[in-house]
Amino acid sequence: MNLETFPNPRPGRRYTITHVNPEFTSVCPKTGLPDFGTITVEYIPNETCIELKALKYYYFDFRQRGIFYEAVTNQILDDLVAACDPLWMQVTADWKARGGINSIIRAEYTKG
Amino acid sequence: MNLETFPNPRPGRRYTITHVNPEFTSVCPKTGLPDFGTITVEYIPNETCIELKALKYYYFDFRQRGIFYEAVTNQILDDLVAACDPLWMQVTADWKARGGINSIIRAEYTKG
Amino acid sequence: MNLETFPNPRPGRRYTITHVNPEFTSVCPKTGLPDFGTITVEYIPNETCIELKALKYYYFDFRQRGIFYEAVTNQILDDLVAACDPLWMQVTADWKARGGINSIIRAEYTKG
Amino acid sequence: MNLETFPNPRPGRRYTITHVNPEFTSVCPKTGLPDFGTITVEYIPNETCIELKALKYYYFDFRQRGIFYEAVTNQILDDLVAACDPLWMQVTADWKARGGINSIIRAEYTKG
Amino acid sequence: MNLETFPNPRPGRRYTITHVNPEFTSVCPKTGLPDFGTITVEYIPNETCIELKALKYYYFDFRQRGIFYEAVTNQILDDLVAACDPLWMQVTADWKARGGINSIIRAEYTKG
Amino acid sequence: MNLETFPNPRPGRRYTITHVNPEFTSVCPKTGLPDFGTITVEYIPNETCIELKALKYYYFDFRQRGIFYEAVTNQILDDLVAACDPLWMQVTADWKARGGINSIIRAEYTKG
Amino acid sequence: MNLETFPNPRPGRRYTITHVNPEFTSVCPKTGLPDFGTITVEYIPNETCIELKALKYYYFDFRQRGIFYEAVTNQILDDLVAACDPLWMQVTADWKARGGINSIIRAEYTKG
Amino acid sequence: MNLETFPNPRPGRRYTITHVNPEFTSVCPKTGLPDFGTITVEYIPNETCIELKALKYYYFDFRQRGIFYEAVTNQILDDLVAACDPLWMQVTADWKARGGINSIIRAEYTKG
Amino acid sequence: MNLETFPNPRPGRRYTITHVNPEFTSVCPKTGLPDFGTITVEYIPNETCIELKALKYYYFDFRQRGIFYEAVTNQILDDLVAACDPLWMQVTADWKARGGINSIIRAEYTKG
Amino acid sequence: MNLETFPNPRPGRRYTITHVNPEFTSVCPKTGLPDFGTITVEYIPNETCIELKALKYYYFDFRQRGIFYEAVTNQILDDLVAACDPLWMQVTADWKARGGINSIIRAEYTKG
Repeated sequence: MNLETFPNPRPGRRYTITHVNPEFTSVCPKTGLPDFGTITVEYIPNETCIELKALKYYYFDFRQRGIFYEAVTNQILDDLVAACDPLWMQVTADWKARGGINSIIRAEYTKG
Repeated sequence: MNLETFPNPRPGRRYTITHVNPEFTSVCPKTGLPDFGTITVEYIPNETCIELKALKYYYFDFRQRGIFYEAVTNQILDDLVAACDPLWMQVTADWKARGGINSIIRAEYTKG
Repeated sequence: MNLETFPNPRPGRRYTITHVNPEFTSVCPKTGLPDFGTITVEYIPNETCIELKALKYYYFDFRQRGIFYEAVTNQILDDLVAACDPLWMQVTADWKARGGINSIIRAEYTKG
Repeated sequence: MNLETFPNPRPGRRYTITHVNPEFTSVCPKTGLPDFGTITVEYIPNETCIELKALKYYYFDFRQRGIFYEAVTNQILDDLVAACDPLWMQVTADWKARGGINSIIRAEYTKG
Repeated sequence: MNLETFPNPRPGRRYTITHVNPEFTSVCPKTGLPDFGTITVEYIPNETCIELKALKYYYFDFRQRGIFYEAVTNQILDDLVAACDPLWMQVTADWKARGGINSIIRAEYTKG
Repeated sequence: MNLETFPNPRPGRRYTITHVNPEFTSVCPKTGLPDFGTITVEYIPNETCIELKALKYYYFDFRQRGIFYEAVTNQILDDLVAACDPLWMQVTADWKARGGINSIIRAEYTKG
Repeated sequence: MNLETFPNPRPGRRYTITHVNPEFTSVCPKTGLPDFGTITVEYIPNETCIELKALKYYYFDFRQRGIFYEAVTNQILDDLVAACDPLWMQVTADWKARGGINSIIRAEYTKG
Repeated sequence: MNLETFPNPRPGRRYTITHVNPEFTSVCPKTGLPDFGTITVEYIPNETCIELKALKYYYFDFRQRGIFYEAVTNQILDDLVAACDPLWMQVTADWKARGGINSIIRAEYTKG
Repeated sequence: MNLETFPNPRPGRRYTITHVNPEFTSVCPKTGLPDFGTITVEYIPNETCIELKALKYYYFDFRQRGIFYEAVTNQILDDLVAACDPLWMQVTADWKARGGINSIIRAEYTKG
Repeated sequence: MNLETFPNPRPGRRYTITHVNPEFTSVCPKTGLPDFGTITVEYIPNETCIELKALKYYYFDFRQRGIFYEAVTNQILDDLVAACDPLWMQVTADWKARGGINSIIRAEYTKG
């Protein structure tokens, strides 16, 4: 995984960037069937910002990957924190219903 | 009742898991008629997470059971806390109107 | 099945009666799991109208019955036509998603 | 019942007038409990139009009256046709759910 | 009243122009209180089109005028037909609730 | 007034019960005309809960009573607090527009 | 300006009263064209409440007045505070778009 | 491709079956990037109906296939007609925006 | 203007293609200020279809062009008909409000 | 850039002014293609307020400018703070989806 970033245009100001992707899809490791959800990433950039096109391709990598709901949110949070070292970041995955149940997993990170 | 769980994939991080079930139904003990509602469970996992399919079958057990509104929320909270020992959990039942009145019962638990 | 009716209060006028039940549930014969849907019945009464409370209990009978989507709509249409001999009737079942797919089955009857 | 009317300001033109009343209430003759619904009247006036304030008071008369769903629509249609002799009129009553079932009764009249 | 028009840029083609004004207000002749509504004009132009800014000022003229619901629609239809001689025109006035009742008056005109 | 209650099934836990009644109606003491609104009661039960059917009949008592907006909210709060001695209660009345103005009155009580 | 009030029926209790008027209109002093907006007044009454009909007529006074957006909110707040001496009051004006831009002006007052 | 069917439970009656799949995804042949859309199939069955689970797997086959918008609708229509020989069928694909433009392709078939 | 097309993949079948662009903008020739609208093109292709990316660039050409509402719809219809020679085409432009008035212009073409 | 202001009509009171512009457009510096978004500015004025028409023209300046998402929000915040020296200001840009991802950038400023 190689998540391209670019320099934060206003590094001295605490401001938030949110990217909402309603077209996320991965595969259920148990059934082999696709899962669909909306991934929302909100963060306060430090020195770099995540490049939007790179983020799109990063999400695209999950299309064939078998991974559980709880792991998706935590994996994306870890990957994006590693890529851009934000002051704060929150990742939310809102999954379409499976078996009539809709699931939302949310995790956040604050720079130590 | 036997609510299957699985190990929390990120036990060191406080994050939230929400499961929304708009297809819950039980039976009114007074009238014998069905009640319909949406059950929302939100929790911060400790060492285990609730298995989604197990949760679906757990809800299915209420289909023929006579139980009052106030008891449903408290019962589900007790059962799920017992099953997965979460750091925090909130259960909300939002019932469709009976006699023109819509009822919502919400209870929460915080690990001592 | 015994669907109570009452005399049409205006038998000489062609007018429509619609009953929408968003709380219908039956059981999938294959999986044994519950299905949830909205049943809409629209009809032009002839000499009798369907009693609303009787309709509620009639729907309640499906709660434990294993029956396929396509059969539910046709069965309800046949039963209600037999019960009240309408000039015209249409039954629509709009099912909540299963496997990510939402299904709607609609059938109609016109008196001979 | 005395439904005031006023002369149609453009008697030669076929045009439609619609009055939507989402605050209609009457009483169920069986249970003595109130029913709530929206009454929509649409008509093509002939020589007179229904006075809006008179219509409001006319609806107000149903507040204490015990009357069935099917009768309400037909009664209003008969009364308003008698009051203003329209070229065409349609009355729709859309009732809030009772026993989880929402009912809509619609009737229409065409002059001569 | 002087409703400016401009030459139809495509006089040979039957096409429709719709102008929706949700900010219409006039005065009730009985109570002296303001009425608020949305006026929708849809027409097929003949040789001229109604100038949008002129239409706005035309509506503005009603702000202090006492006029009944049924008259507003018919008056606007007559004025606009006189101004631009359309092949077809329909005027709809959708009034905010008075005494809990919402009224809609619609009239149309077809040339020759 | 006699508002039936039943023992709180989980008296040791602070949890909330909400009842939403969109079918409330009373009478304006000035005009004698009906008012319509939605009454929402939210409370944390102490030793007893309000019986839902009793609440419905309690609301039904307002149908013929002349009472001002501000008084309705305060009266319901006082009556329900007296009936079930809650730890906390909030009553909100959201009234349909009169004279084009929609009013909302909210009051709350906390056990001393 | 003479804004009628009436005695607060429950002066000892802090509770909120909200009046929402989606039918407010004044005139732009620059262009002479009408502005349309929704005025929301929320307050905690002290010894008196604002009479709803008086409020309607008070708003009606703005219909012909040329006044800027920022002034409307502050003027209404000042007038209503002077009229009923509330413990707290907030006035919000939400204006329909002009030049494609929608504006919202909100001010609040706290007694003493 | 092997689309399982089952015998129509009411072959003598013309009725419609609709399956809505908001979780369809295929791949753009030009860019290699995923497309997302909702596929709606509506049909009047002849002697057989399409099995819902089979339909889900059939859609799943497109997940890795490079195919243009216009081709998806026509391909699905051809495949489903071949599989169940319906009296009538309509297929609609409603695609999420690409380059800010949302596309909808609809085709229908009537048995000769 | 050079609107790229590609061969219709199913030339023998009458089916519809719809492209909705909510991000259209041109310039008002009178004021020099931008107009914003949604352009919807629906057509039945003959031998060629309009390439989606080419359509996007075609719309982009209007960004700096001064052109009236009525002309935009007719111009786009003429250009697209010239480009792909469809069996039928309809173009609708739905413009954001100017002076509080929202306008919709719709034109259609049928191959001779 | 020259952003006209006018004297705050109530400089002693802390109140908020919000301007929502859903018709903002700039150009992506990478692709040369247009971006569309909604810009919301909320502020507490100090001694001057931003003139609404001037704000409209200010936004209009971005129409041909190539500028990245993150820069737009920060640039507008800097320019408006410089123009009116507010006590507090927040700027939010909510961008329409590109590559299926919707982005929101929010920054705020507090005086002194």
